[in-house]
Amino acid sequence: MANPVLPSSGVLSPLGLDKVRLNPGFWGDRAALNSEVTIAHCVEWEEREGWIPNFRGVRPRRGREFSDSETYKLLEAMAWADHPGLPALAETVAQAQEGDGYINTRWSGSRYTDFEWGHELYCYGHLIQAGVARLRMHGEDRLTQVAVRAADHVCRRFMQGTETCGHPVIEMALVELYRVTGAGRYLEMARRFVERRGLPALADIPFGRGYYQDDMPARQAQVFRGHAVRALYLASGVVDVAVETGDQELLKAVEAQWERTIARRTHLTGGMGSRHIDESFGDDYELPPDRAYNETCASIASIMLAHRLLLATGDARYADLAERTMYNMLATGVALDGKSFFYANPLQVRVPATPLEGVNHAAEGGLRSPWFDVACCPHNIARTLASLPAYLATSSADGIQIHHHTPSEIRHDGLAVRVETGYPWRGSVTVRVLEGGEGRIGLRVPAWATDATLAHVPASAPDAPLEESPAVRPVDPGYAYVEGPWRAGDEIRLELPMAPRWTYPDRRIDALRGSAAVERGPLVYCAESVSDEPPLGDLTARVQPPVERAADGVVELEVEASLGSGDGNGWPYAPASDGRASGTDVTLRLVPYHRWGNRGPATMRVWLPI
Amino acid sequence: MANPVLPSSGVLSPLGLDKVRLNPGFWGDRAALNSEVTIAHCVEWEEREGWIPNFRGVRPRRGREFSDSETYKLLEAMAWADHPGLPALAETVAQAQEGDGYINTRWSGSRYTDFEWGHELYCYGHLIQAGVARLRMHGEDRLTQVAVRAADHVCRRFMQGTETCGHPVIEMALVELYRVTGAGRYLEMARRFVERRGLPALADIPFGRGYYQDDMPARQAQVFRGHAVRALYLASGVVDVAVETGDQELLKAVEAQWERTIARRTHLTGGMGSRHIDESFGDDYELPPDRAYNETCASIASIMLAHRLLLATGDARYADLAERTMYNMLATGVALDGKSFFYANPLQVRVPATPLEGVNHAAEGGLRSPWFDVACCPHNIARTLASLPAYLATSSADGIQIHHHTPSEIRHDGLAVRVETGYPWRGSVTVRVLEGGEGRIGLRVPAWATDATLAHVPASAPDAPLEESPAVRPVDPGYAYVEGPWRAGDEIRLELPMAPRWTYPDRRIDALRGSAAVERGPLVYCAESVSDEPPLGDLTARVQPPVERAADGVVELEVEASLGSGDGNGWPYAPASDGRASGTDVTLRLVPYHRWGNRGPATMRVWLPI
Repeated sequence: MANPVLPSSGVLSPLGLDKVRLNPGFWGDRAALNSEVTIAHCVEWEEREGWIPNFRGVRPRRGREFSDSETYKLLEAMAWADHPGLPALAETVAQAQEGDGYINTRWSGSRYTDFEWGHELYCYGHLIQAGVARLRMHGEDRLTQVAVRAADHVCRRFMQGTETCGHPVIEMALVELYRVTGAGRYLEMARRFVERRGLPALADIPFGRGYYQDDMPARQAQVFRGHAVRALYLASGVVDVAVETGDQELLKAVEAQWERTIARRTHLTGGMGSRHIDESFGDDYELPPDRAYNETCASIASIMLAHRLLLATGDARYADLAERTMYNMLATGVALDGKSFFYANPLQVRVPATPLEGVNHAAEGGLRSPWFDVACCPHNIARTLASLPAYLATSSADGIQIHHHTPSEIRHDGLAVRVETGYPWRGSVTVRVLEGGEGRIGLRVPAWATDATLAHVPASAPDAPLEESPAVRPVDPGYAYVEGPWRAGDEIRLELPMAPRWTYPDRRIDALRGSAAVERGPLVYCAESVSDEPPLGDLTARVQPPVERAADGVVELEVEASLGSGDGNGWPYAPASDGRASGTDVTLRLVPYHRWGNRGPATMRVWLPI
Repeated sequence: MANPVLPSSGVLSPLGLDKVRLNPGFWGDRAALNSEVTIAHCVEWEEREGWIPNFRGVRPRRGREFSDSETYKLLEAMAWADHPGLPALAETVAQAQEGDGYINTRWSGSRYTDFEWGHELYCYGHLIQAGVARLRMHGEDRLTQVAVRAADHVCRRFMQGTETCGHPVIEMALVELYRVTGAGRYLEMARRFVERRGLPALADIPFGRGYYQDDMPARQAQVFRGHAVRALYLASGVVDVAVETGDQELLKAVEAQWERTIARRTHLTGGMGSRHIDESFGDDYELPPDRAYNETCASIASIMLAHRLLLATGDARYADLAERTMYNMLATGVALDGKSFFYANPLQVRVPATPLEGVNHAAEGGLRSPWFDVACCPHNIARTLASLPAYLATSSADGIQIHHHTPSEIRHDGLAVRVETGYPWRGSVTVRVLEGGEGRIGLRVPAWATDATLAHVPASAPDAPLEESPAVRPVDPGYAYVEGPWRAGDEIRLELPMAPRWTYPDRRIDALRGSAAVERGPLVYCAESVSDEPPLGDLTARVQPPVERAADGVVELEVEASLGSGDGNGWPYAPASDGRASGTDVTLRLVPYHRWGNRGPATMRVWLPI
């Protein structure tokens, strides 16, 4: 039951790290790099920046007011990764806990004096999530004791009253602690935090109470709004509370908010949050490619939320969005070296970034940085990749469901299967039964896969080419099911259509008018211009089928385009339209968006003028 | 010589408030409203918010660290407007000045400890500008003494060393004080502040040194960058220094920066500054209509700069931009009631603002507010409208030049003329000679006026219809000249073509692709949707000649459009383009942009999808 999310009820039950193992492949390689490189990188920088030393009592204290939370997210990553450094770091953290369970290196001595910006309950939330991870992966130890004591302190201090935290996360943490311990006070505390919010519970601020979702109760909201990470963490906690309390109205409210957010406030990459100034969603259809903020953490929060909604409802659209966000945001957030990170993830970069060796004090998205003053994103990536197996597959009374197709082994109730695939580069997915069992197997067919086929090849059948097999049948987007029982050697072969496709924006997205993007499978592609390659500022692409080109184990694409020189001065508004770029005809190379920014400073664009 | 800017040399010499008087009309009415309502409004709010009481020693001190500067800008406005409240307010300010000339209600006791954000020299700059205004309008008094003592303190303290202020303005203030007093130390101090900047002189900050133009010396920069108000105030001071020191290289550098900024970083309204987070220009071609920041103060700074460049070079394009900015930004910044103000000036608003009675803590641009925590814009409007006559006309050895056509009387060297016009609503401009004299009269023909005509009608000529007069001749954009000598009753009649025109953006402006705007004369128009009028989110306009409609003394326009319902959920990216709005055919009413937001919360758009 090694899961970050384990609801008591719901249409689907997640299979955890004890049931799902990643094999080498797109995600398996990234998870391995995360365990081997990224976690150590985080430890090293947290020591260097003083955030871990804060727990040792080193003074002056360093880091932002919420830096404790980074150490907790790191501990959560270590817990999922069974990292040998965890006990020592947990012991360091434990030193800072006070007798009544309070722990915070910034606010000790002036507890709970700033609910708007203090982040104390936010820090507890991450501590509790780390504790839950450790309990499920390992059982009780020093870290879980610290987390439980902190949670009990929170329940004592806040069960009565009207207070809550300016940054949600404790809501889902407490529900999960309830799920793992069975202690109802944690659920009740979470429920109260959810219900208090928006009455309002916090002070007004220049950004407005919508910034921290305190403008109205969660069950009344129509859409996600304000600071994107806050909004999505809160929504995750609200789903958790709704599921555990059987509050269908509350669950439906979040589903409706999610639907409107997906339709009007989500970038093609799955990224959320259009504004830099307050890291917020912005208005409906405000989706600028260049100034998209799309914080990496918001995308992780969106995956967390979509996973919860998938478990609660079984609706494939939640898994569709999770997949889109995993391949185009989570995979983008960390460089191929595992040691540098994007904070913001725009869909267009006009000016190459200036390389930076040390700490990035800003959050611009032009080039991955080794570290940030606010380093939420590296830790969030680390804990998410470390727990990724728990997001791949689920079970229900009638069998298992495989939502994300990547090389892996899945075991449930005696049945064991191996998923073999070159996805997302190739569209063939083979599920091979290793150990027979009962129940049907469901495979998600992504929404874009409108010509997918599926074949059931029993172990005894000849290994005939799929096209000639009578068992091949077309399958629609959603879930394709094959009934059991299963014998070792049985195979399911899913073929997803991987032709590159042009994608157009809703005409209400003003910032994207007159442009189109190229996708292939779950991947969004982009044009990238490195060093002395021609700039992308004055570009007009031809809408013709993109040509595939294998390169270094990935699939790149080529489209034809005209590139203008970028020259031209004078007033840029004229009595006549200047039409398409009248420049050089070029073959434009498109790379997967998640791979951009790995070759040094570059300009980039996902949306191509057509 | 009552001018805010009075260079010792240059192609053109400005005619000041002693030479130019506004008559009732577009600008005359606004200047009167400013004197009668806006200045008193500012006094009232500065008292209420504690900024004037700060000078009286009332503690705790209130307002932002730079609030002294607001009182100084108000004093400048009062000086130009000959406001009777000036002496008393000047006396209040004088109380706070220390023995050595230092004056700052925030930093007294901890002088010069924060050059990046302290704004001490910035405050002096505005104090000195107020002092210069008073000297020129009135002569020496308490205010001018305070200003001169402060300037002398600055020269003593900063003539040596490497320090400068995070917010420019003192550069142009000191040059002007040099111009009015002849004391070379002020010019030298200004020159040193200019030359120090970018070496660098200030600390690095998360926004980067470009934020306050300290990333490189002014003479090396290619374009205006960083915080827009800072950049444009600095550039104004650099022009002043260049003109007074005869530094042609430095002047050419600013001209080149201006040219690139106009071509790539300026909105159709003349607004500058695309980003909210750091109030900065953003990158080339980053010109989002919805998130355009376009601070009112930046537009005023742009008018100040364009005026300086016009005086230095005589090039009409500077007057063209000033006109565009005056009619579409300065006139927009204040409501028709003279008591509420825009801080940011976007070209598209998707969601009607929530009305606000009191102080606006933010700077969003959906609805004019009576006051702001940072109230630079109201004061900047007040001082600019109070000194507006000084921007209208100039003289040179061969006569006078009229740059902005609005009802007014202009006197120079014996010659007196009256400008009669319904501009910007009507295109007829008559310059009638009141008192005869020598020299030629130049009238600016705006860049958009490609079919203008001009007639010289001597006093003795019959008052024949223009079309039949043999004296009518076509004139090109730029300046149209008529030679003297002049007798009372002589007239020049300029006819500017006022047909509404569609305007298209450069294709490199990604955010505007597939849309066009309507202009008429110097005015940018916009669609505005108030209360229960249909929303503008899903709109497609037909590019046909707009129909004129007179309404309340202004000219509104009508275009045909389709309006979609705004419905629709689901993933907004699809395999096919959804084309134009398939909704209701409507006649879309367009109002001058400067008049939007006067009828309550509304949605608005300048750029119409076509």
